[in-house]
Amino acid sequence: MLLAYFREMEDTIFTKIVKGEIPCAKVYEDEKTFAFLDISPVNKGHTLVIPKKQVEKFHELDDEDAEALMRTVQKVAQAVAESFGPDYNIINNNGASADQIVPHVHFHIIPRKDKSEINLEWSTTKYEEGEQDKVLEKLKANLS
Amino acid sequence: MLLAYFREMEDTIFTKIVKGEIPCAKVYEDEKTFAFLDISPVNKGHTLVIPKKQVEKFHELDDEDAEALMRTVQKVAQAVAESFGPDYNIINNNGASADQIVPHVHFHIIPRKDKSEINLEWSTTKYEEGEQDKVLEKLKANLS
Repeated sequence: MLLAYFREMEDTIFTKIVKGEIPCAKVYEDEKTFAFLDISPVNKGHTLVIPKKQVEKFHELDDEDAEALMRTVQKVAQAVAESFGPDYNIINNNGASADQIVPHVHFHIIPRKDKSEINLEWSTTKYEEGEQDKVLEKLKANLS
Repeated sequence: MLLAYFREMEDTIFTKIVKGEIPCAKVYEDEKTFAFLDISPVNKGHTLVIPKKQVEKFHELDDEDAEALMRTVQKVAQAVAESFGPDYNIINNNGASADQIVPHVHFHIIPRKDKSEINLEWSTTKYEEGEQDKVLEKLKANLS
């Protein structure tokens, strides 16, 4: 718990970028959000969109911050698509099992040229009989 | 051109789902958007969020439809995270090079248990000297 407390207090590399303590190639900024070029791009124009508020996972943002973030994702995705598209991915990873590295919400907007750049073939599972209804029930109960 | 014309006219499998011509496990619906369980889930709770309007790529949606879609992505992502998280990906693929299969905008909300389910290690490139400024200039010109 103590470690978790200190970890929360520590600025992420993205907060340092927002504060101007680490340089970046800034694409866009408004009151609540910030966008800049990824320094290790899959292709040129690969952009990261983040909330200024330092929060680890997307669903932990309050509604206002999440809405602002989604508006900026939309704006930047349209610019990336028009500038470096027509093909691109929008990817947001939350948690270590989902390949999140920096513990600060970020959306990748990635122009794509070739399928080999990212391997998006994934393993799949099936629902047992009756299981889907239980999943639906749980999801609907958590829809705010 | 003629082929493209007919392709546009043809209902996608997602439009058929929205129209009720193909059954689905519906998670959420409003005036402009629709969400349902993926029939080949990475994990249970894997949900697809789509616009009712049949448009191939995200940036081709008009602002109003894109905003409505992003609101539903946010709502469903929060429900998926709370129900089947805490780890999850939000993934939207646009175009064949980006692994889009159904030509109708869709956001995957994928609960994750293990890194091996999706391989998100990707190849990267570097900017030559001065190249980043040109990329920034182009992106900013296309930010509406």
